[in-house]
Amino acid sequence: MTPLVGVVMGSQSDWPTMRAAAEVLAELGVAHESRVVSAHRTPDRLWAYAAEAEGRGLKAIVAGAGGAAHLPGMLASKTPLPVIGVPVETRALGGLDSLLSIVQMPRGFPVATVAIGGAANAGLLAAAILALGDPALAQRLLAWRAALAASVPETPDGAPAG
Amino acid sequence: MTPLVGVVMGSQSDWPTMRAAAEVLAELGVAHESRVVSAHRTPDRLWAYAAEAEGRGLKAIVAGAGGAAHLPGMLASKTPLPVIGVPVETRALGGLDSLLSIVQMPRGFPVATVAIGGAANAGLLAAAILALGDPALAQRLLAWRAALAASVPETPDGAPAG
Amino acid sequence: MTPLVGVVMGSQSDWPTMRAAAEVLAELGVAHESRVVSAHRTPDRLWAYAAEAEGRGLKAIVAGAGGAAHLPGMLASKTPLPVIGVPVETRALGGLDSLLSIVQMPRGFPVATVAIGGAANAGLLAAAILALGDPALAQRLLAWRAALAASVPETPDGAPAG
Amino acid sequence: MTPLVGVVMGSQSDWPTMRAAAEVLAELGVAHESRVVSAHRTPDRLWAYAAEAEGRGLKAIVAGAGGAAHLPGMLASKTPLPVIGVPVETRALGGLDSLLSIVQMPRGFPVATVAIGGAANAGLLAAAILALGDPALAQRLLAWRAALAASVPETPDGAPAG
Amino acid sequence: MTPLVGVVMGSQSDWPTMRAAAEVLAELGVAHESRVVSAHRTPDRLWAYAAEAEGRGLKAIVAGAGGAAHLPGMLASKTPLPVIGVPVETRALGGLDSLLSIVQMPRGFPVATVAIGGAANAGLLAAAILALGDPALAQRLLAWRAALAASVPETPDGAPAG
Amino acid sequence: MTPLVGVVMGSQSDWPTMRAAAEVLAELGVAHESRVVSAHRTPDRLWAYAAEAEGRGLKAIVAGAGGAAHLPGMLASKTPLPVIGVPVETRALGGLDSLLSIVQMPRGFPVATVAIGGAANAGLLAAAILALGDPALAQRLLAWRAALAASVPETPDGAPAG
Amino acid sequence: MTPLVGVVMGSQSDWPTMRAAAEVLAELGVAHESRVVSAHRTPDRLWAYAAEAEGRGLKAIVAGAGGAAHLPGMLASKTPLPVIGVPVETRALGGLDSLLSIVQMPRGFPVATVAIGGAANAGLLAAAILALGDPALAQRLLAWRAALAASVPETPDGAPAG
Amino acid sequence: MTPLVGVVMGSQSDWPTMRAAAEVLAELGVAHESRVVSAHRTPDRLWAYAAEAEGRGLKAIVAGAGGAAHLPGMLASKTPLPVIGVPVETRALGGLDSLLSIVQMPRGFPVATVAIGGAANAGLLAAAILALGDPALAQRLLAWRAALAASVPETPDGAPAG
Repeated sequence: MTPLVGVVMGSQSDWPTMRAAAEVLAELGVAHESRVVSAHRTPDRLWAYAAEAEGRGLKAIVAGAGGAAHLPGMLASKTPLPVIGVPVETRALGGLDSLLSIVQMPRGFPVATVAIGGAANAGLLAAAILALGDPALAQRLLAWRAALAASVPETPDGAPAG
Repeated sequence: MTPLVGVVMGSQSDWPTMRAAAEVLAELGVAHESRVVSAHRTPDRLWAYAAEAEGRGLKAIVAGAGGAAHLPGMLASKTPLPVIGVPVETRALGGLDSLLSIVQMPRGFPVATVAIGGAANAGLLAAAILALGDPALAQRLLAWRAALAASVPETPDGAPAG
Repeated sequence: MTPLVGVVMGSQSDWPTMRAAAEVLAELGVAHESRVVSAHRTPDRLWAYAAEAEGRGLKAIVAGAGGAAHLPGMLASKTPLPVIGVPVETRALGGLDSLLSIVQMPRGFPVATVAIGGAANAGLLAAAILALGDPALAQRLLAWRAALAASVPETPDGAPAG
Repeated sequence: MTPLVGVVMGSQSDWPTMRAAAEVLAELGVAHESRVVSAHRTPDRLWAYAAEAEGRGLKAIVAGAGGAAHLPGMLASKTPLPVIGVPVETRALGGLDSLLSIVQMPRGFPVATVAIGGAANAGLLAAAILALGDPALAQRLLAWRAALAASVPETPDGAPAG
Repeated sequence: MTPLVGVVMGSQSDWPTMRAAAEVLAELGVAHESRVVSAHRTPDRLWAYAAEAEGRGLKAIVAGAGGAAHLPGMLASKTPLPVIGVPVETRALGGLDSLLSIVQMPRGFPVATVAIGGAANAGLLAAAILALGDPALAQRLLAWRAALAASVPETPDGAPAG
Repeated sequence: MTPLVGVVMGSQSDWPTMRAAAEVLAELGVAHESRVVSAHRTPDRLWAYAAEAEGRGLKAIVAGAGGAAHLPGMLASKTPLPVIGVPVETRALGGLDSLLSIVQMPRGFPVATVAIGGAANAGLLAAAILALGDPALAQRLLAWRAALAASVPETPDGAPAG
Repeated sequence: MTPLVGVVMGSQSDWPTMRAAAEVLAELGVAHESRVVSAHRTPDRLWAYAAEAEGRGLKAIVAGAGGAAHLPGMLASKTPLPVIGVPVETRALGGLDSLLSIVQMPRGFPVATVAIGGAANAGLLAAAILALGDPALAQRLLAWRAALAASVPETPDGAPAG
Repeated sequence: MTPLVGVVMGSQSDWPTMRAAAEVLAELGVAHESRVVSAHRTPDRLWAYAAEAEGRGLKAIVAGAGGAAHLPGMLASKTPLPVIGVPVETRALGGLDSLLSIVQMPRGFPVATVAIGGAANAGLLAAAILALGDPALAQRLLAWRAALAASVPETPDGAPAG
């Protein structure tokens, strides 16, 4: 199945964070691919990935990176597709560096940034975008949210009755 | 023309920031509406706006707010449409409070956050989402970006020749 | 016994923090209830909880949440009761995001914010508010504080004599 | 009329911030007093103010201070009355120092902290606390909030029609 | 021996940090005492400690506290003796709250602040102050510093030769 | 009169901040000198100043600097005299850089740090240290503080009577 | 004269900051060029600039950018030349975003980062690198530093004699 | 072999961070030395090291330190050689203190700052500087980068095929 969403990350070490994006897309039945594309180590791969994304049929890109996180923003400068950025938590600064590097983009090139470590939400956002043109996916997304809502207990487990 | 994008803001005082979203949507020929919806002063208006958005034909919502900025996230909890959040700059903390209040959403309810004060980019992101299903808009968006690229001088104005 | 204080939290995972509020209320003999009310997953439950709180006899609400913590502020917009906010510590940013999301409320809708993780103090603040109209509770609260003061050693345990 | 709320501040220079608390209390018909009580320059005045507050009939104290803001917390350690803290904006750090100095209180001594510069909200919170025992005030507070809600325009002033 | 330096802390839990102050004073042969004085739980003890310090022969006070750390500043407002503040590290914010609560004192009431967790340096600073009037102590302090300098290896242990 | 306190600063541009230290010392009748000593532009002057300070009769050094503020700490490494550091406010970061560069000194070399821009307090701290061995100065310092306390109005100027 | 240093910046609006780099290079007689190269608006220009830099005879690149500042890091990934990064001050966050986006580069691709707004130092660093192979430039650089040192007054202008 | 790069650090405890600089220099065949030079404990050693560096044939210095990190900047004030600064991570503030203490240098004395904990990059930057005058090293550096690029997998290890 031709992937509709590309889940890319700057490093193998981002996978434990980014897999949540792939997993939620799988749960929602959205065809996707997962790739390592390092902005700094493999800049030409980044260039090619961004240049070919639309032609290959991708509709959105989820991109995660940490520290001086340039991957989401550079993708956004090279493709007209919506780019969703995931700031990966960092050891020294907790991911504040990743967040600011991703979200503070200049006029012309938005990156749709989610929470630090929020890869699942990045997948959900990609799905919500695709759902605008795919009513069946829209239904699945509503069901996913309904199931999430249903998982909230009335009373915290462990609280005394009363 | 039925609006496709709702540009909402928590307060009249956010308009000088948020008008850039409306302006870029106008430049790109995207039908939109601008509304004040205060999460705290008019919570029922927020509830109604979110509940009716999809049915009224909106495809995306751009929401700006400052400080304890709850508008984008509460909209995201009530509508399946993509919600794009604009952290409005604040006097005391520069908008860091707005940014964290908007971007750090829990699993299930992403807000596509742009830069502090980045309302133009919020409009562009909404347009990029709509362009996935509207080739003519995609063309206009490409042209907009090309014009932006063409505006970059080779040499800084004011630099000595050499 | 009809609860006078509602202890609510955005997620089951907030209970290890928030139980300290319930425990201090129990120590002080203040009738209370503990509930999970997610601003984003169960917004209608939030709406109902806030709308019914005063009618059900609640006098104050203690609300804890983390990250983009919207629960306390949205409660405050929907009920005239005093709302006490507890910023829950977060992994990436230590709870600075929770704190700013809760405390930086706009004019009209205060949230009485306590320290990051300060759920016990939230319970004490609720008790102090109730004690204004309940002299017996005021006595118990004074005794609680006296016991706390009495627990402070003169000399740090482990310090050499001298 | 015996004041029910004390509005205190660490310095004459805090008055431009703190007057909003006094003004909102006046609008709501809550008897109050405004005093300068410097934790560091007049510690004995602080001691006396806190010790006498309850006996003089005060029901709540609104305390504003900036920088190493010790006034609210020291009042809270000396009186059982609810103490509401207002972090005053500072030149160098925007009031982040004031906020952390006020909100991060240890177990036993909560300060109900509002936003940086949020003195109006401090007044409203004091009124909400008093309103629990004063139905007429509760009505006036509801009316105040209704008027605030009514002041929100549907469409931002300055937005083009459409 | 009459203590010359008081090492005080807001809580028993500060002792693992503050003991380094006592230890360095012991190494330097400076008579001192260690006390728990909680600004919030035992404000009258704080008052008494500050009021009596000079009369009891103390020459300087080392005071450590965490979070909304009011102990050093309140001591400084009540005694003319030099007060040295030690910001104790905190779980949520790393001690940034403690640091700002201690160092940002208003005009008139300095607290000589050392690094987060820097209790040993607080002891050394107290000794340096006393050494101005005690040549023998000045000699011991110089020797202490010389020993510290002598402990620095030329080449890092573990580095390959070369 | 031989100066007892050296007021040094890293740059001429620090004088508007640092003059408050000189002024308070003058008010208190403490002999002092004001010098520009740049840690980076004139490191040998720094070396000489620190090496000669004690021999010239100085008892304490007040040192102000901004940004990567190395002057106070390097003086502290070269002289056994107490060094009082004044973080000078900076344009980009408000002086947080100056504060951390000055206060976070390693074990062995304390800098007695005061608030950002707190040069007056640095002068007062130097005076308090000298006053330990100068009863007349101690009296003048008490009088200075008493005058400061007396300057605090009971009621904020501008507040309505009541 | 073939330029040895490229001074590049992300936007015309960075020129008021970056001109200091060009000016110091001119003072030191280092041939250089000034160019606008936007990482996001003109990514292909960035690619070409980095790819051709070494072949054109450049020895170092000074790159300034603000916000999500990707220019220095992307240049560093594409050229083996030393890249010196200048974080440009930003309105909302003072340039902390620029700093973290530039300095926090991953293993393999250093950017030699200078202070926020520190373009003059970037020029000096480029000159110091070139001076390793150019003794005449090394002499000029030493003279430049000597002149800077000579500009430091002994006593702050405006200080009273004494 | 005469060392060309000095790898210095403020403390033995910095070696686990700084060894990465030495290791990458070794991999690249760059002669270097590793030394402990404490700015505060051994200021004269710092002075001597900086004064003799150029004469001993060093071409660049890599200097790491944590907290109030003065070593890189003080070296930069005493030697015309390029100084590369490594902010060492700190327990309380994650290294933000180290970073600001190193990078925010005043005009005239740049420190080429790398990421918090980024010692490997400091070594690479030193190598890139030396490579300007050493074509064989330039080749080895290119090969090192090529190997790094080759280590990036196409698909994250652990991702499902698809």
